[in-house]
Amino acid sequence: MARLKLIVAYQGTRFHGWQVQACAPGEEPRTVQGKLEKAFGVILGAPVRVHGSGRTDAGVHADGQVAHVDVPDARADMDWRRALNANLPRSIVVVEASRAADDFHAQNLAREKIYTYNLWLTRDFVLPKRRHFVWAVGPLDTAAMEAAAALLTGRHDFAAFRNMGTEVQTTVRTVHGIWREPTGYPAAPGLEEVWFFRADGFLKQMVRNLMGCLVAVGRGKLAPDAVAGILASCDRSLAPPTAPPQGLTLKQVFY
Amino acid sequence: MARLKLIVAYQGTRFHGWQVQACAPGEEPRTVQGKLEKAFGVILGAPVRVHGSGRTDAGVHADGQVAHVDVPDARADMDWRRALNANLPRSIVVVEASRAADDFHAQNLAREKIYTYNLWLTRDFVLPKRRHFVWAVGPLDTAAMEAAAALLTGRHDFAAFRNMGTEVQTTVRTVHGIWREPTGYPAAPGLEEVWFFRADGFLKQMVRNLMGCLVAVGRGKLAPDAVAGILASCDRSLAPPTAPPQGLTLKQVFY
Repeated sequence: MARLKLIVAYQGTRFHGWQVQACAPGEEPRTVQGKLEKAFGVILGAPVRVHGSGRTDAGVHADGQVAHVDVPDARADMDWRRALNANLPRSIVVVEASRAADDFHAQNLAREKIYTYNLWLTRDFVLPKRRHFVWAVGPLDTAAMEAAAALLTGRHDFAAFRNMGTEVQTTVRTVHGIWREPTGYPAAPGLEEVWFFRADGFLKQMVRNLMGCLVAVGRGKLAPDAVAGILASCDRSLAPPTAPPQGLTLKQVFY
Repeated sequence: MARLKLIVAYQGTRFHGWQVQACAPGEEPRTVQGKLEKAFGVILGAPVRVHGSGRTDAGVHADGQVAHVDVPDARADMDWRRALNANLPRSIVVVEASRAADDFHAQNLAREKIYTYNLWLTRDFVLPKRRHFVWAVGPLDTAAMEAAAALLTGRHDFAAFRNMGTEVQTTVRTVHGIWREPTGYPAAPGLEEVWFFRADGFLKQMVRNLMGCLVAVGRGKLAPDAVAGILASCDRSLAPPTAPPQGLTLKQVFY
């Protein structure tokens, strides 16, 4: 067998997330992993398993999800990008497909990830072109959010910012940076901004929980300093609500 | 009656353009004008006509289409933006609704319009998030395109760049500017650019025909200088094919 590394982009709007879910035959929800496995199945005439760097939730997008998959040696050198894209819906695109080392592992070897989260800065309206890609939060106190973001950066136990449902050995993660780009979408100056989250790994819904917390600070509902206490508490119930999925994109995975 | 001015944004992907089309009852295609008139009908309990600044084709978007409509005096001061948005699909948004002079006319009084057209600079893939908003053309010779754009700027007979189907008194228009912004979408650096077209008016499919011509130049299929000859010919059959609709957005209308 030969191992392939895929870089996959998708619009998550109409998917039940990345991961295939166990269901009665014919009732499987539409997932990105499922569509990729189906495309491989058509090309190879046999089922394969596609391993992603991690799950993304329903409605969450990816510009650079990474996955690995094993294919027969005889098929290793075909134009996999083209073949897969011809068998995928247009909401999923294989940006790159390359031969990887036999021990490459999309999840276990991921060193760092970058997620982005797009905020829409008025609640009066959302431009229809942007409705599947932003969270409309209204005007924000950016300085307060940046002060809170600094407190969340570094090596911490992020138990207060993870949702249950995935077993992990530790809830300690190192957040390398949380920063803001003011121009989320140049066609709408002043209306959209992007927040970047870079870490050695993220717990379940951690980015959405961090974003929900920062927006609470930006709206003046929470003092920036209070974030340190929430973090130290390791108590999810003390942190503000989870941000909705549609603003989130898995941007890049580093190995 | 009181006249309202609306600024309307929409994602054109799933619409058969702006304009209501005459069809057998129950078979009317989904149009933006039709959805707006339906929303007014629900709110007022009576049919009204919504007049746009001009048509947009199926698949073409708007950030700032302008329309006018007459409503009974007694309803003039209600919160029309909120009322309309509550009765519109999320792919159409009223950004602004305000009282206008009785003689305001969205189409007849429009002085200038700006359209934008987004190009995707590789043909290998289109990011799924951007697939409804760009034309994937591959790498382009920008300098050649800018030279051609300069020849198209100014007061000319644009008959070679209009498609038939709408009667007009003259095909002479003044193009005030055609220019390029290199960052179409900051999340995909180097992959997307935007072209702006500003004129005192545009003929049917004129922006898409100008963009098709500029892309032909950018691909080296047409010399920049040849554009002057095509313009002078007033012959549509000599100009390159029309660009597809999904890259185009009606950005702003000036009065």
